[in-house]
Amino acid sequence: MIKIAVDMHGGDNAPDIVLDGIEMFLKEFNDVEIHLYGDEKDNRLNHPRLKMHHTTQVITMEDEPVRAIRRKKDASMVRAAESVKLKETDAVVSAGNTGALMAAGLFVIGRIKGIERPALALTLPTINDEGFMLLDMGANADAKPEHLVQYAKMASIYTQKNRGISNPSVGLANIGTEDKKGNQLARDTFNLLKEETSINFIGNVESKALLNYAADIVVTDGFTGNMILKTLEGTANNIFKMLKETLLASTKTKIAAGLIKKDLMQLKNKMDYSEYGGAVLFGVDGIVIKAHGSSDKKAFFNALKQARQSATEDVISLLKQEVTHE
Amino acid sequence: MIKIAVDMHGGDNAPDIVLDGIEMFLKEFNDVEIHLYGDEKDNRLNHPRLKMHHTTQVITMEDEPVRAIRRKKDASMVRAAESVKLKETDAVVSAGNTGALMAAGLFVIGRIKGIERPALALTLPTINDEGFMLLDMGANADAKPEHLVQYAKMASIYTQKNRGISNPSVGLANIGTEDKKGNQLARDTFNLLKEETSINFIGNVESKALLNYAADIVVTDGFTGNMILKTLEGTANNIFKMLKETLLASTKTKIAAGLIKKDLMQLKNKMDYSEYGGAVLFGVDGIVIKAHGSSDKKAFFNALKQARQSATEDVISLLKQEVTHE
Repeated sequence: MIKIAVDMHGGDNAPDIVLDGIEMFLKEFNDVEIHLYGDEKDNRLNHPRLKMHHTTQVITMEDEPVRAIRRKKDASMVRAAESVKLKETDAVVSAGNTGALMAAGLFVIGRIKGIERPALALTLPTINDEGFMLLDMGANADAKPEHLVQYAKMASIYTQKNRGISNPSVGLANIGTEDKKGNQLARDTFNLLKEETSINFIGNVESKALLNYAADIVVTDGFTGNMILKTLEGTANNIFKMLKETLLASTKTKIAAGLIKKDLMQLKNKMDYSEYGGAVLFGVDGIVIKAHGSSDKKAFFNALKQARQSATEDVISLLKQEVTHE
Repeated sequence: MIKIAVDMHGGDNAPDIVLDGIEMFLKEFNDVEIHLYGDEKDNRLNHPRLKMHHTTQVITMEDEPVRAIRRKKDASMVRAAESVKLKETDAVVSAGNTGALMAAGLFVIGRIKGIERPALALTLPTINDEGFMLLDMGANADAKPEHLVQYAKMASIYTQKNRGISNPSVGLANIGTEDKKGNQLARDTFNLLKEETSINFIGNVESKALLNYAADIVVTDGFTGNMILKTLEGTANNIFKMLKETLLASTKTKIAAGLIKKDLMQLKNKMDYSEYGGAVLFGVDGIVIKAHGSSDKKAFFNALKQARQSATEDVISLLKQEVTHE
């Protein structure tokens, strides 16, 4: 039985979508047990494979991450992470404060020995609907070349196990495709990745090619990764917003809007990365999944599914073996 | 009379759009003289204020920038840049190889004394149609905090003179809006910008807010700037491509497409930054404008207009005064 700890109070629409997601999840999978951490009076679910753990504090989006983790000892997120540390559960899933969840991973669960820096990895959409993994999304803003090599290794193992891609391609996010492009970090990382036989490094990848499935995995430092993500989100959101305004501008455009509404929704969903599950915090000694803050029940369900898959494949043991004892 | 040197052979659609742009420009402004550098037999224009300078070489998009500038001494781009160096012209405009034009600015025209690093600045679109200036777009991949402060000063002067904004706001591109966010470079730059009284620093700006007009000017290092630009371009292009496919998918959607075609074109044009002119290479001792490689005649005309405005306002002298002798 796979045991997943869930933070009931994380995310914009918690605990509602969290509970709905759990309900779907328990219905779909018989081999899982949910350990729900939160205020028990907010729980309306009752299921033989759901264990309620009452907590009295909540970490908010405004909380300063490290301070919150240290001071709010009875927060739902902290208690859920602790259950992973104590091996009472196999994974923790939260849609709450990203910084706090990273801090919980790092300070409550702890880093895998030999991994120098954690990295937050997200599967982003591509035009061909495959999605690709981008990391680091901001766990470690000042990365060194060696860190990026570890990211590449961890993501390769994860992609093999969670997505079933046998020899995943790894690209380095860069400002040009030529070998010597980029800043010092990119150039030094390129040279290290090129020598690394345990991964399938395919060279530099430009950010304009990301949505066109340039590689299965794209590595970069946390500052750049976060910048890419937010530029991508901001651009897509603004275009869809302008598109909506355009379609509501006149009677004529409203008629057109009626005809293509369904198709446009599909298009918009294509860009919605919560379809691919949550972000994974690599490098900590347990499975930590961050569902998007604005997750709906389907997105939270996907994050739970992702946690189950990682636990089933025992990804953490593989990471330990392959990344640290080579 | 303002004299502008033009590289006839730069860009995807050169020399056609270059010549068309010049034709429009000479018709609109009586106070300008164009010095056209290129193969004279490709020139079909004849105008009293157009001086043809025959050249025998061309720098291609595939050329390695610095090598090309050094070896192709008679290239249209190099000769055009030389005319600025020799004070025969006031500005150079090219739609060619960006790296080569930056190298020409740096090695042929030369840096302004006291400016440590050049920066390429581009005006990008915003939803409110104002546009904002982002720099550096990649002239200097490994920047130091002091460089970014100089970028902010140069862009402030330029924005005052070229856009008529009296006290332009300056933001620092970052992965969060809080004061202590970001990598080491961002945090150190924040502290320097905060102390800088000659500019109107408004703090950190997230890349997802850029299209919403977060500031008149946004500074960042060349690696990050180029990453932001290409992510933005890639996302917008891909969404418009998917939108087109969606609209051509069935008879129903084709009917809708017919109704909104004009509105959608307007929306697409909103995202087209060549409407705002070309990129400016700050820090070299002359006006260097890079028109987008895929410029049409209107975009090239806009780049020429921008060069004229900078020359009229004598932006270079102002930059020298304000940035270097403070």
